[in-house]
Amino acid sequence: MNRDGIELRKPLEEEPLDLRGFERPRALIREIEEDLTPLLDLVQRPVVSARQFSREQLLQLARLAARFETQPQLSTRPLTGKIMITAFYEPSTRTRLSFESAWHRLGGDIMSITDPASTGLAKGESLQDIGEMLSGYGHLVVLRDSNEQSVYEMLETLRVPIINGGNGLDEHPTQALADIYALLKWRPAMSRETPPGSERVRLGIIGVPGRMRTIRSLLLLLAHFSTALDEIVLITDEQEPFADGQMDELSDKGLRFRISDDLNAELPSLDVVYTNSILWTGEGFEELGQKFRLDAESPLKPSAIVLHPLARGKELSRQLDSTPHNWYFAQARGAVFIRMALLSTMLRLFA
Amino acid sequence: MNRDGIELRKPLEEEPLDLRGFERPRALIREIEEDLTPLLDLVQRPVVSARQFSREQLLQLARLAARFETQPQLSTRPLTGKIMITAFYEPSTRTRLSFESAWHRLGGDIMSITDPASTGLAKGESLQDIGEMLSGYGHLVVLRDSNEQSVYEMLETLRVPIINGGNGLDEHPTQALADIYALLKWRPAMSRETPPGSERVRLGIIGVPGRMRTIRSLLLLLAHFSTALDEIVLITDEQEPFADGQMDELSDKGLRFRISDDLNAELPSLDVVYTNSILWTGEGFEELGQKFRLDAESPLKPSAIVLHPLARGKELSRQLDSTPHNWYFAQARGAVFIRMALLSTMLRLFA
Amino acid sequence: MNRDGIELRKPLEEEPLDLRGFERPRALIREIEEDLTPLLDLVQRPVVSARQFSREQLLQLARLAARFETQPQLSTRPLTGKIMITAFYEPSTRTRLSFESAWHRLGGDIMSITDPASTGLAKGESLQDIGEMLSGYGHLVVLRDSNEQSVYEMLETLRVPIINGGNGLDEHPTQALADIYALLKWRPAMSRETPPGSERVRLGIIGVPGRMRTIRSLLLLLAHFSTALDEIVLITDEQEPFADGQMDELSDKGLRFRISDDLNAELPSLDVVYTNSILWTGEGFEELGQKFRLDAESPLKPSAIVLHPLARGKELSRQLDSTPHNWYFAQARGAVFIRMALLSTMLRLFA
Repeated sequence: MNRDGIELRKPLEEEPLDLRGFERPRALIREIEEDLTPLLDLVQRPVVSARQFSREQLLQLARLAARFETQPQLSTRPLTGKIMITAFYEPSTRTRLSFESAWHRLGGDIMSITDPASTGLAKGESLQDIGEMLSGYGHLVVLRDSNEQSVYEMLETLRVPIINGGNGLDEHPTQALADIYALLKWRPAMSRETPPGSERVRLGIIGVPGRMRTIRSLLLLLAHFSTALDEIVLITDEQEPFADGQMDELSDKGLRFRISDDLNAELPSLDVVYTNSILWTGEGFEELGQKFRLDAESPLKPSAIVLHPLARGKELSRQLDSTPHNWYFAQARGAVFIRMALLSTMLRLFA
Repeated sequence: MNRDGIELRKPLEEEPLDLRGFERPRALIREIEEDLTPLLDLVQRPVVSARQFSREQLLQLARLAARFETQPQLSTRPLTGKIMITAFYEPSTRTRLSFESAWHRLGGDIMSITDPASTGLAKGESLQDIGEMLSGYGHLVVLRDSNEQSVYEMLETLRVPIINGGNGLDEHPTQALADIYALLKWRPAMSRETPPGSERVRLGIIGVPGRMRTIRSLLLLLAHFSTALDEIVLITDEQEPFADGQMDELSDKGLRFRISDDLNAELPSLDVVYTNSILWTGEGFEELGQKFRLDAESPLKPSAIVLHPLARGKELSRQLDSTPHNWYFAQARGAVFIRMALLSTMLRLFA
Repeated sequence: MNRDGIELRKPLEEEPLDLRGFERPRALIREIEEDLTPLLDLVQRPVVSARQFSREQLLQLARLAARFETQPQLSTRPLTGKIMITAFYEPSTRTRLSFESAWHRLGGDIMSITDPASTGLAKGESLQDIGEMLSGYGHLVVLRDSNEQSVYEMLETLRVPIINGGNGLDEHPTQALADIYALLKWRPAMSRETPPGSERVRLGIIGVPGRMRTIRSLLLLLAHFSTALDEIVLITDEQEPFADGQMDELSDKGLRFRISDDLNAELPSLDVVYTNSILWTGEGFEELGQKFRLDAESPLKPSAIVLHPLARGKELSRQLDSTPHNWYFAQARGAVFIRMALLSTMLRLFA
């Protein structure tokens, strides 16, 4: 049988997952008991690192996201009159639009700085001065910068909440929130303190935790769900995939790792495969994925899902888009709802 | 008599046309009987080619535009909570602002992608993936790209309506809508199935239908008004001004052409002169207009109007701005109202 | 004592000024009697030069700004449905965001042109044609361009109000409004026709009035407050700091100047020190400030305030940020409120 992309567009034996329906978010709402108390600690606070989130906050944010997902037409516009400033000094349409869409759906207005050349930075203005300025002009800032210190420098003077939208190779906490929301929506029982064995997850991660900010942040959040996870299989051919102290910190939090460089040997036993291609080299971005590639020939477990923060390169074939393995589109779609949950929480406006 | 620009700023004998008043759009409203049924086929559908529009749809869109033009202060904001994404990978302030103004007037919010370098394209993201992403983030997409295939590639995955805002040398259907609206507003009787002879129009087009997308789309729409048109005089010095099969298709639809390379010989008998300067060379844009130029010396029929999609080059002198020949400013102004009509129709929200 | 930046972050003996409280704007409201009549002359008018403002208009705009500052949550959104177009052909995040924040707070929508390459200018479109276009698409235009003639060329055809957001080395009238608002908020008695001697102000300006547009515009506004000012000390080492005729015009309006090149000799007697670093060289911007620098060592009068339009360079040390001399942050913050006052006035919508 010819398994090229054209052929695979035809209906498959397996039913594709319900990427956009209400059933799964509704199941998540039923699974988690509402308790807004833990979210109060996020009100008017900066979100810089995934380390800041507690397990209870993650569950309540996911629940709130599921509520937004199942009621796309809000009856109110709670952020009317509030201004978000998106300062993306490093290009990223996907993250920026996801934040802007979330804010607009809540009724707020937006001012964007997309071009570094158009900012005070071009005149040598310090991030501290920019922080002071933005405090007077908006109600929340989202910052992406390739320099991981920038968010901290801006924080010295900023008097409105800021969200780290990606700082160099360090962290990307809201992407990790979207990842966790995708996992919980897929398997709500992961939210239980002691999920039954049948609901426990074998998770594979293709990538380099030491130098991929999405994976760094994700692992910090996954640590809150260690009882729902079997060992994490890290698939890489790097000799030192972790940053200094990273594995110790994560092990202390309860995560167990095994490292493998044989993707196809691992795939048949994985429930979730998380892959990513963007790697920071210190001077710019590099694409991985030549070696570890997922496509229609990959020996995935029939029930396995694939996650990917997108944009993708060659490491994830479009052949999988119309298969039940595709949960990355649900993940991307959910990114708006989890950001609505976070933003409305930070501005203390529960929908 | 010195006819340079300064002199011509003085009042002319002829009264300028009423470019911005309510009289002409009101006359158009009276001329066309309201029937929203044909517009239902446009609801939630993509608009890629001028071929998609029926005569009835054009008339009802023009009527709806005239209603917007005569009531600039809407009492409701029907698109509140809806998000338009303008993705202009090829620069165009005029078209982008026209869409954005229309959307804002209807109450909606906007996210813009203006810089190709800031998009996933820079990371090599496919248009199919971008289409999937935008489906989750907004309610309608306007795309301009110099590659004519881009809109079709995005359509493979997009689940919200898209409007082709210009795709290479292929089409620019909403500019053609603005052109038709300008014609109907100027002469409402053109909307009749068999206009009296005195209302029939001799139309001249200065340009190259094979390689100017605005003219390509316009001719497809004009075909619905062949009974209101005498022969179309195509003024060009190109040997093969049409693309393969283009003239046959248009002739089959009822348009009759004559080709001339002598502008001044034709002008005295033309009721409408449509001119344009932007020509796609395959690698970029080129300006025509050195040879066929309209200015105060041009032997225009006193009652003739000039149309131009703008921006203009030397082919259309500012000397004509304050004369009754200037209907191109009415055409540009009407572009917002016809887009309001189209956008509110596509989102099924008649004002 | 070590006076480097780190040390100075510690609490100072002097109490910092109340940069963001309601007390000072409330005092200003009490000081100025409300009279909206003078503002009627600004309705639907262009704002190109600081010369346009009368003393009474300045006082009423400042009063209106103070009202906005003391009621940050507007109960109405008076500009709902109105569209501002910000055309910044010369980069400036600070001014653009200040205008956009003011407009958004009043409830309006915004369309931005930030990239010259994305505009008709790239196709050689004239500013007159752009003015005609923008008249159809928005309700107010803010233009910044390094060519000082641009605003006048656009005015030839524009039929909606325009604000000069900085035109080359010529003027920046709304920055001057922000400066005046900062002065009046700091010392409300400056608004009296004959302030008592104890309230009169010795003002120093570090800069070059001939080639710094912020200072040019500011001096034109200061002329309305000559009875509240002692001589203005211009601190510069340029031989001809004024442009042709500039000093004569200002002297005729009642300002008296003394020129000095010894900053530290002047500082102990100045109540207000206005400094700026950006100087137009004819081809681009140049930073001054190597010689005339304000920092913790500067012999400022204890009660003196420093003003700066920002962004700053080395001429103004961050060491002063946490001292009572810092009124430049209040000045930047107030820039939003004075623009709200101006914009709502121009669109005839008093809050």
